[in-house]
Amino acid sequence: MLHFRNDYSNGAHPKVMEALCKTNLELTVGYGMDPYCQKAADLIRQLCNCPTAEVHFIPGGTQANKTALGAFLRPWEAVIAPDSGHIQVHEAGAIEHNGHRIFLAPAIDGKITAQQVKKLCLAYCNDETSPAPKVVYISNTTELGTVYSKEELLQLRQVCDEFGLYLYCDGARLACAMVVSDTSFADYAATCDAFTIGGTKNGLLFGEAMVITNADLMPSFRRCLKQQGAMLAKGRLLGVQYAAALEDGLYMELAHDSVKAAQRLSAGLQALSIPMLIDSPSNQLFPILPNAVVEALKDQVSFEVWSAADENHTCIRFVTAWHTTEQEVDALLALLKKLMA
Amino acid sequence: MLHFRNDYSNGAHPKVMEALCKTNLELTVGYGMDPYCQKAADLIRQLCNCPTAEVHFIPGGTQANKTALGAFLRPWEAVIAPDSGHIQVHEAGAIEHNGHRIFLAPAIDGKITAQQVKKLCLAYCNDETSPAPKVVYISNTTELGTVYSKEELLQLRQVCDEFGLYLYCDGARLACAMVVSDTSFADYAATCDAFTIGGTKNGLLFGEAMVITNADLMPSFRRCLKQQGAMLAKGRLLGVQYAAALEDGLYMELAHDSVKAAQRLSAGLQALSIPMLIDSPSNQLFPILPNAVVEALKDQVSFEVWSAADENHTCIRFVTAWHTTEQEVDALLALLKKLMA
Amino acid sequence: MLHFRNDYSNGAHPKVMEALCKTNLELTVGYGMDPYCQKAADLIRQLCNCPTAEVHFIPGGTQANKTALGAFLRPWEAVIAPDSGHIQVHEAGAIEHNGHRIFLAPAIDGKITAQQVKKLCLAYCNDETSPAPKVVYISNTTELGTVYSKEELLQLRQVCDEFGLYLYCDGARLACAMVVSDTSFADYAATCDAFTIGGTKNGLLFGEAMVITNADLMPSFRRCLKQQGAMLAKGRLLGVQYAAALEDGLYMELAHDSVKAAQRLSAGLQALSIPMLIDSPSNQLFPILPNAVVEALKDQVSFEVWSAADENHTCIRFVTAWHTTEQEVDALLALLKKLMA
Amino acid sequence: MLHFRNDYSNGAHPKVMEALCKTNLELTVGYGMDPYCQKAADLIRQLCNCPTAEVHFIPGGTQANKTALGAFLRPWEAVIAPDSGHIQVHEAGAIEHNGHRIFLAPAIDGKITAQQVKKLCLAYCNDETSPAPKVVYISNTTELGTVYSKEELLQLRQVCDEFGLYLYCDGARLACAMVVSDTSFADYAATCDAFTIGGTKNGLLFGEAMVITNADLMPSFRRCLKQQGAMLAKGRLLGVQYAAALEDGLYMELAHDSVKAAQRLSAGLQALSIPMLIDSPSNQLFPILPNAVVEALKDQVSFEVWSAADENHTCIRFVTAWHTTEQEVDALLALLKKLMA
Repeated sequence: MLHFRNDYSNGAHPKVMEALCKTNLELTVGYGMDPYCQKAADLIRQLCNCPTAEVHFIPGGTQANKTALGAFLRPWEAVIAPDSGHIQVHEAGAIEHNGHRIFLAPAIDGKITAQQVKKLCLAYCNDETSPAPKVVYISNTTELGTVYSKEELLQLRQVCDEFGLYLYCDGARLACAMVVSDTSFADYAATCDAFTIGGTKNGLLFGEAMVITNADLMPSFRRCLKQQGAMLAKGRLLGVQYAAALEDGLYMELAHDSVKAAQRLSAGLQALSIPMLIDSPSNQLFPILPNAVVEALKDQVSFEVWSAADENHTCIRFVTAWHTTEQEVDALLALLKKLMA
Repeated sequence: MLHFRNDYSNGAHPKVMEALCKTNLELTVGYGMDPYCQKAADLIRQLCNCPTAEVHFIPGGTQANKTALGAFLRPWEAVIAPDSGHIQVHEAGAIEHNGHRIFLAPAIDGKITAQQVKKLCLAYCNDETSPAPKVVYISNTTELGTVYSKEELLQLRQVCDEFGLYLYCDGARLACAMVVSDTSFADYAATCDAFTIGGTKNGLLFGEAMVITNADLMPSFRRCLKQQGAMLAKGRLLGVQYAAALEDGLYMELAHDSVKAAQRLSAGLQALSIPMLIDSPSNQLFPILPNAVVEALKDQVSFEVWSAADENHTCIRFVTAWHTTEQEVDALLALLKKLMA
Repeated sequence: MLHFRNDYSNGAHPKVMEALCKTNLELTVGYGMDPYCQKAADLIRQLCNCPTAEVHFIPGGTQANKTALGAFLRPWEAVIAPDSGHIQVHEAGAIEHNGHRIFLAPAIDGKITAQQVKKLCLAYCNDETSPAPKVVYISNTTELGTVYSKEELLQLRQVCDEFGLYLYCDGARLACAMVVSDTSFADYAATCDAFTIGGTKNGLLFGEAMVITNADLMPSFRRCLKQQGAMLAKGRLLGVQYAAALEDGLYMELAHDSVKAAQRLSAGLQALSIPMLIDSPSNQLFPILPNAVVEALKDQVSFEVWSAADENHTCIRFVTAWHTTEQEVDALLALLKKLMA
Repeated sequence: MLHFRNDYSNGAHPKVMEALCKTNLELTVGYGMDPYCQKAADLIRQLCNCPTAEVHFIPGGTQANKTALGAFLRPWEAVIAPDSGHIQVHEAGAIEHNGHRIFLAPAIDGKITAQQVKKLCLAYCNDETSPAPKVVYISNTTELGTVYSKEELLQLRQVCDEFGLYLYCDGARLACAMVVSDTSFADYAATCDAFTIGGTKNGLLFGEAMVITNADLMPSFRRCLKQQGAMLAKGRLLGVQYAAALEDGLYMELAHDSVKAAQRLSAGLQALSIPMLIDSPSNQLFPILPNAVVEALKDQVSFEVWSAADENHTCIRFVTAWHTTEQEVDALLALLKKLMA
């Protein structure tokens, strides 16, 4: 079976696992107050060129989004998000469960534009019969594999400043975003009030690092973590992993490998003249295939069915990861070539 | 430094870690739908002698409690708990954050009695100006190391049946409870509507297994997990660990080792005529020491200060774990003997 | 000043006020347990031809919607509504504040169709990464003055049955809906699981009657009212008003008068060839006027600006009420004629 | 039947009703933006000697408490209250439904002391495993008819300042509190961050005036009102009533009359040597009577059973109101004398 289902199908990169094994029997204090979390947080502050940032480590992505947005918003405030955003389509109403509306803009290539944000702000910020927009949520890379450019981030920052909003970036796949765009850790620290640096989908067993750069959002965040069940007892497991991934550049290497595999696959799909749902530069690809091909594929490839394209075609998703090999890509392409013939 | 701070200070038991390493590069589906979670759930159903139970794996304890109680209660319903219960004293208001009151009974040795539950039910179940009690929350062992007997569980079950309440047991330290009481997995399945089998505090990296035996509480539980951010992307990490711990009895062995170390320590403390806050049979002990001794101890022992006993004495907490050695216990006792002299 | 701003600009119809004055010094028990609430509830059950219905009286409309939907939904469940629905556009996020998402369908003439409901159900009912649709919310008349026919109600009922959903009708303007459609109280009782019979906008000082016909939704509703602050201490004020309005047909008469005035106004607008945003048969009309006319109108008429139509035109709203006279309508039309000349 | 059940058993004082009737057919804008609300708010600001206060009018008391505390608290924050407080005993969990814990202190004569507040703050303000206390809730008069002195208010203010807490006073019976203590409107404005001036229990049909003196708590309060369903469509009904009650001193007169009746009753009970649950100076009295007397009383007097005193005695509650006459008090005393003989 060829595996292109997602980028969180295995455990951790061996070096990350090794770090966990090596420290396994050490005894430390819990709840993220240990030296490993301290070290990983320091590394992140350095990478972000933001010595005043607060860094918290959280087991999962929905937890991270739910805790952050719950902490940042007052009861009458709302999030603005593209309608393809993870908080809208994949978290079973976690944000609403915290009491907040998500104002949706129709995603353009999986993204929201500053202009769309402005329009929603103009419509709702001063309307007391409506919740008040207060946070702009983006994910980068997006759920469709697309990516915000530095310029786009700056435009979002500007509109947020204009209306007094916070900019929050869900970075579950931030490493891939940095590989395929002109953005760096420091750019996110400079433009976002808070953002995550994803671990689960980039070589860690699990974990998201929450970076808060806006001092207004820092107080009592640990209480929120606790209240949301997002503070891991053995918090050092997250620190150990992040330190291992970040201290020698492994984290970015893994994303490079993942993107490289995706680009090989993308080129191959193009060579086969397979249409794509969207032009994604990163590790998620959305080919549109004849239904019969999709069915035949299921026997030999693990992947996700995305959506019906038309009566006879289905859009599916291929995801590469740091461990995807050239051989696997080529085998998939060969299989597709055969099935498409 | 001698380590008696808690039972979640290190990583996982080597056999559990080995299982994680061995399966690390396997590729499986996510969100708990993998064969390892299936296997672990089957093992639990067998141990519980309850083939119809639903089993879910959740990264953390607060998450487990918050998700379960949030799923079980309607907006106007409340939990009954002893005032020393974890949901009251250690979860930063997670239950209230879900919208529910906790009705407190003054804990008797860390426990709540059926009589106390009955009193609260009589007071509030039919009072429409009050939230309606609907779940009895217990933890076993308790936050004070004490344990419910099978008879006590049955009495709680009976009062729950009388008033139409659910009985929920937070089993973060269930293994220790089973070691020091006359209860088995099957007893919890038989008396509780839902309970957890704790991993974090008994040799796993992290994880709680939620066992739901009451079919009324099963529908949509996975949606609740998702909404609460309690569904791990790489869910199989939990399945692998539970399977490793449960398939050959390791899980109970670890609790036996932990209790054995605690009993050696308890006997030693008694020999030193050190008074205890409470007569705990399990792996948490609460000696009351002169303040000067507590201060001196801090240099060489990691432990938690529990509460002021009087002006000159402080109650502290020693916790043993599966990895606590006889030598460590004896060294602690020797040190105490010296300091108390 | 001519008053066409809304149908809740004055106090109560004189007969309703008279009933309040007449009973003013009587002493009764509170919280809706008094004989007047009992009497009014009985009248409603008779009108609805539904002797088993539960009837509760609630001061305001947002409260009514918030309390009902909060009581009917589990945490992971959601409401389906047209995007023009009151809960979406006028309640400042009351439903999300209770923890629930609103799934929106683009309103067709202010209404949602059974087909749209079906599409949302097919998309989300079985997707565990999404909240689960459980209630269909409609308002009748709608926020645009349009009305559901009996056939449309039956179609919504059918799709609700197909997917196990509740049908809830916000009847803030139910009287007008009954005047301009082929529906009766009994039809709402027969098709909806719960609905309100609005008082505030039809001659009462304030008040909405919540009619629950589905026995599954009845338990503990009074507790929900209490918890949401929706149970009036002097509950009898609501009972007295509803009894006065319902016992001799006044309630429907007032709606007839209101619609009659609207029809006169509508005919006049048509005669002036003024385009309308929507073809509304009830007491809300949405003419589109040149901006200059709108500005000029403001000096002599109280009305609401609805939306920009194009650069040079604005849609405004005229609302008639039971107290709107032919003279007022004619004066408004004369004024418009002059301004449009 | 003699009526001593509560102070909200009838409608409104005739002068208040007259004001409603007189303005009944006037047409005004809704949602509290009308001239009557403006006038009433101005009167309150004058009485409070606080020209910067924000005043909002809310239909009911639970709504007022729920909206205010929901607006003032962040998700991780909690209220401190005496365990006899209305938010704990009579609102069906409204505060928890908003997500917040109530930290309870054992009430001393229905009140909480600054010392008790301090103790709870010391225990929880800096404990990140606990919700953080942020508001002190008091009611004045209390649910037991007792009253805070000016000195007690100042002490509470001081401890609130020490720990950065808000002081909130539920003034459902504030008028009575002012009659029987050395406090004035201005004292509440000076010591509380927000408080209510109750209408329902002092001669209005319904209504509570929320006075916010702390500018930090003012932004977006109207949005909260809307979201909580606490903004009355015909808001002017509240403005008209408050203006009528406040403009010529009627509001305080009614409380004087109520207290005067209570004092006559209290003296009479004392003369009959009937023991009291508590020494209440205001319009709620809590005599302890033989069970047989209580039973016999039910035929001729409307009152509330409060609690069992012992096997043979029951504590009941008598409440006087502005409309209670000397004759009614004397008739009740005569009846008691006969029954106690």
